[in-house]
Amino acid sequence: MNVEKFKDFIETYTALTSTEWQFIRNAFQRKVFEKNEIILDAGDVCRNFYFMESGLIRYYYNVDGNEVTKTFTISPYCFTSRISFRNQSPSKECIQAIERTITWQTSFDNFKKLEELISWNVFIKKLVNEVEEFSEDFHLEVRTMTAETRYQKLLENYPDDLIRKIPLKLLSSFLDIAPQSLSRIRKKLRNNDEN
Amino acid sequence: MNVEKFKDFIETYTALTSTEWQFIRNAFQRKVFEKNEIILDAGDVCRNFYFMESGLIRYYYNVDGNEVTKTFTISPYCFTSRISFRNQSPSKECIQAIERTITWQTSFDNFKKLEELISWNVFIKKLVNEVEEFSEDFHLEVRTMTAETRYQKLLENYPDDLIRKIPLKLLSSFLDIAPQSLSRIRKKLRNNDEN
Repeated sequence: MNVEKFKDFIETYTALTSTEWQFIRNAFQRKVFEKNEIILDAGDVCRNFYFMESGLIRYYYNVDGNEVTKTFTISPYCFTSRISFRNQSPSKECIQAIERTITWQTSFDNFKKLEELISWNVFIKKLVNEVEEFSEDFHLEVRTMTAETRYQKLLENYPDDLIRKIPLKLLSSFLDIAPQSLSRIRKKLRNNDEN
Repeated sequence: MNVEKFKDFIETYTALTSTEWQFIRNAFQRKVFEKNEIILDAGDVCRNFYFMESGLIRYYYNVDGNEVTKTFTISPYCFTSRISFRNQSPSKECIQAIERTITWQTSFDNFKKLEELISWNVFIKKLVNEVEEFSEDFHLEVRTMTAETRYQKLLENYPDDLIRKIPLKLLSSFLDIAPQSLSRIRKKLRNNDEN
């Protein structure tokens, strides 16, 4: 348990005075989600904004009983269900902890109070901008790359042990292919490595 | 040519005093794009924010010489290349007029000046929110609906003559299917109508 990680995280975006950090620190509470715990269910209002100190979450849709994995977020990072949180309206997406995930959460009302801080607004603006750029690149990749290439990119950009923590079913849903297809891709890449 | 359409459009989001409208009006200039004209090319910085009085545009990516249609925007609406405009950085996407398109444009510097107006900020905030919700729904549909269902939804939500203005090649690229597949879907739906 180390809330200083949140301070370090914010400071990669903008400088903070110690007074500002204390103000931010006081607005956040520690909250731990166990492996597979649902953080937000569709239809519920997302009441919190989170900093993820450690762990791994996924965003997904529940469509006629089928779960469609939209994306993953890896610690350290911030997350919320953006539209639901901003409008305090029911969410269309669900959020789930894939492994035990330590977060620091703040309520909508506290988030609004933080907007009195210039440096908080700079942080949030840069963060939102970054998330949008990720999202833009992600949707471009979905449209233009094969599942195999996207999987190879994941392997290049993230540690092996992290990828292994994601169940095959969720990873294949994220890549929009059948679990069997992902198994075939994995086998093929392993064979390529061995040759 | 009727800039009052822009005033009407803003007023569907927020009220404007006549002074505010004059301030906004003076920041915008008329700009017409001919059919097929490129409004923004990949690699260029998007210098303007546009209100589309009439016409139809598409966003697309150019990937190894292949055009991948991302989305369409139909008048009356506002458009820009959001990340490129905000950061004044090179755009990854291209924007093209599909038919003759009458716009009102404002530069990045003028846009910044408009941010002095509270009502302008309310308008932009609601617009961005709306675009994000469209985008959320759109990506959900792409992941969970067949091309045929998505095409049927287009037919239900937009006038026939508008859909007809979009070349088969672009519409099939938007639906992420081969033009031949879209022809088959169209034929099948026509046959269903006749029976």
